[in-house]
Amino acid sequence: MSSWVNGYPADGVAVHDRGLAYGDGLFETIRVVDGSPRYAERHLRRLVHGCQRLSIPCEPDLVRSELQAFARSLGDGVAKLVLTRGAGQRGYGSPDPCHPTRLLLAAPAPAYPSENADEGVALYPCTTRLAEQPLLAGLKHLNRLEQVLARAEWQDRRYAEGLMCDTSGRVIEGVFSNLFMVIDDRLTTASLARCGVAGIMRERILDIAGQQGWQVEQEDIDLGQLWHASEVFCCNSQYGIWPVRSLQSHAWPVGPMTLKLQSLIAEPDIP
Amino acid sequence: MSSWVNGYPADGVAVHDRGLAYGDGLFETIRVVDGSPRYAERHLRRLVHGCQRLSIPCEPDLVRSELQAFARSLGDGVAKLVLTRGAGQRGYGSPDPCHPTRLLLAAPAPAYPSENADEGVALYPCTTRLAEQPLLAGLKHLNRLEQVLARAEWQDRRYAEGLMCDTSGRVIEGVFSNLFMVIDDRLTTASLARCGVAGIMRERILDIAGQQGWQVEQEDIDLGQLWHASEVFCCNSQYGIWPVRSLQSHAWPVGPMTLKLQSLIAEPDIP
Repeated sequence: MSSWVNGYPADGVAVHDRGLAYGDGLFETIRVVDGSPRYAERHLRRLVHGCQRLSIPCEPDLVRSELQAFARSLGDGVAKLVLTRGAGQRGYGSPDPCHPTRLLLAAPAPAYPSENADEGVALYPCTTRLAEQPLLAGLKHLNRLEQVLARAEWQDRRYAEGLMCDTSGRVIEGVFSNLFMVIDDRLTTASLARCGVAGIMRERILDIAGQQGWQVEQEDIDLGQLWHASEVFCCNSQYGIWPVRSLQSHAWPVGPMTLKLQSLIAEPDIP
Repeated sequence: MSSWVNGYPADGVAVHDRGLAYGDGLFETIRVVDGSPRYAERHLRRLVHGCQRLSIPCEPDLVRSELQAFARSLGDGVAKLVLTRGAGQRGYGSPDPCHPTRLLLAAPAPAYPSENADEGVALYPCTTRLAEQPLLAGLKHLNRLEQVLARAEWQDRRYAEGLMCDTSGRVIEGVFSNLFMVIDDRLTTASLARCGVAGIMRERILDIAGQQGWQVEQEDIDLGQLWHASEVFCCNSQYGIWPVRSLQSHAWPVGPMTLKLQSLIAEPDIP
């Protein structure tokens, strides 16, 4: 499938690109439907925020217009948008001037079984822990070896996702999803102050909860709280919401809050 | 300057390479003198060890022969060797089969002032901390955003290196060097059980200390111990050993152990 580099069709990136050298960049994985990027403004806002935190120059209007054109040419599928600090010479110091690299990569729409959303999924208990690094927490940056190691822990297709805790044992997220729980009737998701990715669907769910006037918490969660949750679900911008049916010997029903949110995220998003 | 991809001259890498997507790979920065890669076997051993820990297939004989040919064509300078898990489709799961990408990038020999080795350097006190991730500790992998952030903390050329502590405040290393101290007449360097890069020159110095019958420790070091050290030096395979002259309000002399080691590393290495 097609790929663009800095707005033009290309299938290669310079060997000196700092995205390759150091994972010095950010990415967004964007579902494209009928030629239109879904949640485009949320993705762009997160990208701009990440660029600010990493001091990577970003031209959001240029990125947006390229994304829209790429999505039109793609029609249906997934557009992966990568922004790196660009080419540099040897050494960690930033190139000056800095010319970021913009990549757009096409992939087919994900083919997840519909049972994942309807009946829920089983989580694999990953032993790979997330290191605590507040300077990078929340960002969808290109340093993703922890996710690579975690995803390599299981091949059994009965597990649709894996649970990741941080090095202190707190429950954080899935390998490619965020996680929500209902604890004592309150919607709860992990604080991402130390690690984890602040997902687009996580943000959308927090916004919806706010609009509905629900109490919602972002806090430190231990495994004991997870075991006692009445509902658990995972989410991302590709598949929406999957109820979590089981983890190790624990099982959860597909609960009313999960079903309600599955219905609410199907409604149009605020830009 | 020249670059090779999988043994052939090329200046681009596939946009789907996992080195770019996730920093899913390793690198070695190798000084080349008179067409010969310095410490080649140490670099190759570290690369093979890193591949084992990340489950990346590696062909050391092929990597060695390409490195030697590249070094001959380079003559004098630096060869950066990068090995990634190769191209993959979207998602963290490893491609199967996996075809790693081998890169060799040429750079000029570093031009450090000779005073760095003779009179010592001032360290910048980086506020960027190293996250504690035992699964990646010691590896020279491509997830290097922490070093990028740390190196961006100072532009003042009076600082040749920066000191990095871990998130618990332990003294670990420089941004692109390892650190040794003499504490109570014992040569000491940080344990790399939780974070840090196990440098080639660090390994060489530990080997030399063993050959000399010196007591040498790899242990957790706090700032108080650093302040009370009688000698401090940093090292890497490019520049060798630089005495550390100062850090904040603390100053150290260029001590006898540092001078002795500078002389010993100039002798031929054991393969």
